[in-house]
Amino acid sequence: MYKELNTTLRTIMTPGPVEAEPRVLRAMCTPILGQFDPEFTDIMNETMDMLRQVFRNSNQWTFPVDGTSRAGIEAVLCSIIEPEDKVLVPIYGRFGHLMVEIAERYEADVVTLETEWGNVFDPETVIREIKKVRPKIVAIVHGETSTGCMQPLKEIGEVCRELDILFVVDAVATVGGTEVKVDEWKIDAAIGGTQKCLSVPSGMAPITFNDRVEALLRERKRVERGLADPSTYQIKQLRMIRNNYFDLSQLMDYWGPTRLNHHTEATSMLYALREGLRIVLEEGLEARFARHKMHEAALIQGIQAMGLKLYGDPKCKLPVVTAITIPEGIDGEAVRSTLLRDFEIEIASSFGPLKGKIWRVGTMGYSCRKKNVLHFLGAMEAVLIRCHAKIPAGMAVQAALDVYSKAESI
Amino acid sequence: MYKELNTTLRTIMTPGPVEAEPRVLRAMCTPILGQFDPEFTDIMNETMDMLRQVFRNSNQWTFPVDGTSRAGIEAVLCSIIEPEDKVLVPIYGRFGHLMVEIAERYEADVVTLETEWGNVFDPETVIREIKKVRPKIVAIVHGETSTGCMQPLKEIGEVCRELDILFVVDAVATVGGTEVKVDEWKIDAAIGGTQKCLSVPSGMAPITFNDRVEALLRERKRVERGLADPSTYQIKQLRMIRNNYFDLSQLMDYWGPTRLNHHTEATSMLYALREGLRIVLEEGLEARFARHKMHEAALIQGIQAMGLKLYGDPKCKLPVVTAITIPEGIDGEAVRSTLLRDFEIEIASSFGPLKGKIWRVGTMGYSCRKKNVLHFLGAMEAVLIRCHAKIPAGMAVQAALDVYSKAESI
Repeated sequence: MYKELNTTLRTIMTPGPVEAEPRVLRAMCTPILGQFDPEFTDIMNETMDMLRQVFRNSNQWTFPVDGTSRAGIEAVLCSIIEPEDKVLVPIYGRFGHLMVEIAERYEADVVTLETEWGNVFDPETVIREIKKVRPKIVAIVHGETSTGCMQPLKEIGEVCRELDILFVVDAVATVGGTEVKVDEWKIDAAIGGTQKCLSVPSGMAPITFNDRVEALLRERKRVERGLADPSTYQIKQLRMIRNNYFDLSQLMDYWGPTRLNHHTEATSMLYALREGLRIVLEEGLEARFARHKMHEAALIQGIQAMGLKLYGDPKCKLPVVTAITIPEGIDGEAVRSTLLRDFEIEIASSFGPLKGKIWRVGTMGYSCRKKNVLHFLGAMEAVLIRCHAKIPAGMAVQAALDVYSKAESI
Repeated sequence: MYKELNTTLRTIMTPGPVEAEPRVLRAMCTPILGQFDPEFTDIMNETMDMLRQVFRNSNQWTFPVDGTSRAGIEAVLCSIIEPEDKVLVPIYGRFGHLMVEIAERYEADVVTLETEWGNVFDPETVIREIKKVRPKIVAIVHGETSTGCMQPLKEIGEVCRELDILFVVDAVATVGGTEVKVDEWKIDAAIGGTQKCLSVPSGMAPITFNDRVEALLRERKRVERGLADPSTYQIKQLRMIRNNYFDLSQLMDYWGPTRLNHHTEATSMLYALREGLRIVLEEGLEARFARHKMHEAALIQGIQAMGLKLYGDPKCKLPVVTAITIPEGIDGEAVRSTLLRDFEIEIASSFGPLKGKIWRVGTMGYSCRKKNVLHFLGAMEAVLIRCHAKIPAGMAVQAALDVYSKAESI
C-alpha cells in the first residue's frame, strides 16, 4: 500500500507549473456541489466575470476549458479550423510549433514564418506575410516560455481585423503576469494558462472569444445526439467541428443560459480558478504587473552581478521568464539537479535548438516573490562556485537587494 | 469583488459528481511539484499502479487523461478510429449516443443497435450483429447512468477477441463501485470516471488499454513538432491521430519512461486521484462492491416501502444508480427542487425519452452511506406527502433500517 502523500515543499522557479497560492489550495478543499446546483452555476458565472476582467475584454464567451493549457489552444483551433483553411503561424519558439501541430491535425493549410529562437517578429514582417498569404486565421504565441521572449501584438491585430482575419493568441504564459489586452489589441480568441501567472494548479485553460468567432461556431454547430430532439436531429452537418470535447459551440450551451449538459464541470479546479482570480483582482492588474517587473529586475541584476549572461534580445524579453546562457564548461543539467537536491529549487532547461544552451527561470504569480528570488540567487551562486565556475562571490544577492531597497523606498 | 467561497454542504445522491472523500479534498491542498520532479513522477507511477489494480488488469498503459470523463472516451476513440473505420455501438441510453457522436466526428462508419431505455442487450443479440457487421471496433457503455442499467460484457468481449475486433468499454459509472474486469472480460480499452464511484472530483479520466491498442497507436504515431529532431521529422504521417491533446501515442511517451513533454500534468487532480485510489484499495474492491450492494438494497426497500416503483428491468439494474418512476400527477422537477431547497439533497432527473419520467438516485463512493440513504428516504417521503401523494407514512426509513440491521448482524 502506498503511503500518505507527503511532498517536499519546493521553491518552483520554472515557467510553470509554479507554486499555487495557499488560498487557492485551500479553496480546493471546499466540498463538491452538483454541476447544475444554483450555487455552482453562480460560481461558474462569477468565474466568467472575473476572467473577463483579467483578459480585459467584454466577451460573453470567456470560460475555462477542462484540460491543461494546450486543451484551450486545441479547443479554439479545432472549433474554427475547417479542412483546407489557410492558417498563418509565425513561430519564434516551441509553442509556435505546437500551434502548427494542432492546426495540421485538423487539416489546415498551414503557412509558417520563422525567426531565430531568442527573437520575436517585427510586426511589419508579419503584416507583410499576412497581406501576401491572406489566411483565414493568424495564430501566434504572446509569451514564448521556451525562449523567454514576448511578441508585440497590437499592430498585427489591427491588420487582421481590417482584413477580416481571425486573430488567435496563446497568452498562456502572460495572462495575469503582464498586460494582455484582448479587446484593445483586436484579438478574436485568446487562451490563458492557470499554472503560470495565475498560480492555480494546472488542469484548466481559460479562453475568451468574441462575436466574430461565435458567428463561425454557430454555422458549424451540431447539437449532441442523445440531447437533441430526434425529430429535428441534424444528421448532416458537414462543417461540424471534428471534436466533441473541445466543441466550443457545445461549450457555449453549457456555460451560457441554456445550461445544456456536456461534460461534468471540474468542480474543485473551478473553485481553485475562482479563488486565483479573486487574488489577482484584489491585488489589481497594474500592481500585479509592476510586482512582476520589480522581481524580474532584481533577478536580472543578481544574475548579471554573478557574471552570467541573459539569453535573447532584451528588447523583447518576456517579463515573467528569464533565460540565462549556460556558461561554457558548465553542465546545465548537473546544476539543475544540484539546485533541486540541495536547495529544493526547481528551474527549467529548454527544448529544440536551445536544449542544453539555456536555463529558464520563471518569476510567475505566487512564485514571484522576494524570498524566492533571493534564495535562487544565493543557491545558484553556491552551485556554480561548487562547479568551479569563475564567478564573483557574494555579489548576486546584494545586487538584487539593491533593487528591492530602491523599490521599497518609493 | 466576489466573496470568499462558502458553499452549502449538500447531500449529493446523483449519479455524479458525488461527494468527494474528505481525505481526497485534503490531498488537493498539497503544494505543487514540478511535472518532471522525481517526487512527482513517482506519484504518477504509483497512481498508474493503483489504477491497474482497480481496473483489474496488467496493462502498462493505465493512466488518467487530463479532462473530464468524456475526455477519456474521446482520447480512446480518436486514437483508434481512422476515417471509414466500421464502429459498432449498441445503444441503451444517453451515453451510447455519446460514443456514436464522438465516433462520427472522427469520420467512422458507425453502425448502431438500439434497445429501449431501461433495458440492456442480450449478449447474443450483440454477438449476432458483430458477426454480421464485422466492425473494427465495438464500443459499449458498461453502466448507463441515464437509465440505471448495466450491460453484461464478458461474452461480447470473448467474441471480439476471437474475431480480432477492438472492444472499448465506457466504465465511467462502474469503476470502483461494481466489478469491472478488464483483462478477464477481454476489454481492449476501458475508461473510468473519477467523480462517481471513486469519489474524486471531476476533471480526470482514468483509462487503460492493452498491447493490441498499443500496436495500432504505434502505427499512427507522430512525434510533436518542436520536440522532434528536425532532420528526421515525419511531415507525412497520413494515418496520424486527428487530435493532439488526446493523442494516446504521445501520452504514452509522457507517462512512460521517455517522459517526453506533452501537457503539464494536472498536479492537484493527480494528488486527488492518488488519494482516492488509496482509499479504494484500503477498503478492498470486494468489500467496496458489497458496501455498494448493501446500501442499494436499503435504498430499494425504502423506495418500495413508500409505494414508489423502480424503473427498468431489475435483472440488469446498475447497483450504483437507482431509477424511480415519477408517480402520476407528481411534478418531478418540483420534488427535486424542494429536496434541494429544504433538505439540501440533490438527486437527478434524466434525458431524452426518460425526461420527466424518472428520478435517478446515485449511491456512489463516499455518497453511498447509511446517513445519506436514510436522510434521502425520510426527505423524499416528506416531500411527497407535502405534494399530496398518497403514500404510506413512516415505512420507508424503517424498511431501510431493517436492511441495515440484518447486514450489521452478519
